[in-house]
Amino acid sequence: MSDARITLQDLKEKMDDFVHARDWEQFHTPKNIAMSIAIEAAELMEHFQWLTVEQSKQLDDKALAEMGEELADIIIYSLSMANFLKLDLAETVLAKMEKNIRKYPVDQVQGKSHKYTYYLKNDEK
Amino acid sequence: MSDARITLQDLKEKMDDFVHARDWEQFHTPKNIAMSIAIEAAELMEHFQWLTVEQSKQLDDKALAEMGEELADIIIYSLSMANFLKLDLAETVLAKMEKNIRKYPVDQVQGKSHKYTYYLKNDEK
Amino acid sequence: MSDARITLQDLKEKMDDFVHARDWEQFHTPKNIAMSIAIEAAELMEHFQWLTVEQSKQLDDKALAEMGEELADIIIYSLSMANFLKLDLAETVLAKMEKNIRKYPVDQVQGKSHKYTYYLKNDEK
Amino acid sequence: MSDARITLQDLKEKMDDFVHARDWEQFHTPKNIAMSIAIEAAELMEHFQWLTVEQSKQLDDKALAEMGEELADIIIYSLSMANFLKLDLAETVLAKMEKNIRKYPVDQVQGKSHKYTYYLKNDEK
Repeated sequence: MSDARITLQDLKEKMDDFVHARDWEQFHTPKNIAMSIAIEAAELMEHFQWLTVEQSKQLDDKALAEMGEELADIIIYSLSMANFLKLDLAETVLAKMEKNIRKYPVDQVQGKSHKYTYYLKNDEK
Repeated sequence: MSDARITLQDLKEKMDDFVHARDWEQFHTPKNIAMSIAIEAAELMEHFQWLTVEQSKQLDDKALAEMGEELADIIIYSLSMANFLKLDLAETVLAKMEKNIRKYPVDQVQGKSHKYTYYLKNDEK
Repeated sequence: MSDARITLQDLKEKMDDFVHARDWEQFHTPKNIAMSIAIEAAELMEHFQWLTVEQSKQLDDKALAEMGEELADIIIYSLSMANFLKLDLAETVLAKMEKNIRKYPVDQVQGKSHKYTYYLKNDEK
Repeated sequence: MSDARITLQDLKEKMDDFVHARDWEQFHTPKNIAMSIAIEAAELMEHFQWLTVEQSKQLDDKALAEMGEELADIIIYSLSMANFLKLDLAETVLAKMEKNIRKYPVDQVQGKSHKYTYYLKNDEK
């Protein structure tokens, strides 16, 4: 299982090598990369466009493989963005997760999808 | 530097715990998660909407921090999607990178942004 | 009912006046406008992010008004794009509708969401 | 020029007929339509992904025709959404344009792309 061995640093470096070897920094501007992530995200979404929620949970191997490729594209451009922003991606993700843990306390949001402001007292909203 | 220590497996597990503790599997359907990635990608893109390419390379600390948070949201939902698809994310990303390396040979695409079909002989397009 | 009186030409001209009066052609480049449509589309989508299909059909007046505003933003930027492309928008829309009518024959697709290739004989796919 | 004759009401009715004849109301839920607009918006954006601003203004006829089709798809799904929301689209668009005219006064924003809050006194932000 590669996920248990490979760090985000490994992936960021591979992406950096790929872009640099092709002299593609001129195209991989942060503005273009942001567009590219959004385009790949829409391609992933397209697989679910007409599926019911039930159908979206019963995917065959072909669908899973195609979705995996789209998800990989999203991650690949995200690594490129992190390289440009000189961002410690794992740290940023962990910090955002911590923020979400505080924002959505288990005992208040369990099984509910309301926005977190719903759970604040009215004068704190 | 967390990126050099943290594996994707660590992050996937943290995300799984977060969703499970809140009984949010019912909302985190793959269809909803695909929408969520696209929404967060658009929020990242919004930061670049009216910037010139030059301006997009001269970002102040506040902009960088905000973009980092949006990028973290994209990664967080992508981890959730990988958990649902039971996907070895690092392996899928590495496989896609290998495919891109073969698709865009350095000596043919260096400094060019044309689609890879441009470099095929006409009868192979 | 304005929809019965107002033509797309009226709306395109109003949008053109708005942009021109502000000397905003320099920002309203087709690349930026394409990004802007995608950003507004994501904002509309955000309203439906966690709703079930059933909930998405039972919207209160506040939700309807907010969604209307997001939809207006999508149309406004689309008018700006049509102005740039010097496009007869109604004609283009009618032509695409005709194409869809031929592509999805009523007697073959009624009540089905499959992609149209599903209905072609195997050797025509 | 169809844009000078065709009203939004004409187009909304054509779209309604198309969906109804195919019994597609079950798929054209507002949630799915919102996703569809976002997907088509990304397809339009894809045409501009690697273009410079200069290149994005020098499009050949093939590019223009393809972009026109993507824009038509965005409008078509927007008409479907307006039908669902029972929205007077022209009125909503005109109201939003009026709001933008007040929000971005010509004498303050001419030639500038700053967000409108930039022009408010500090205590009004």
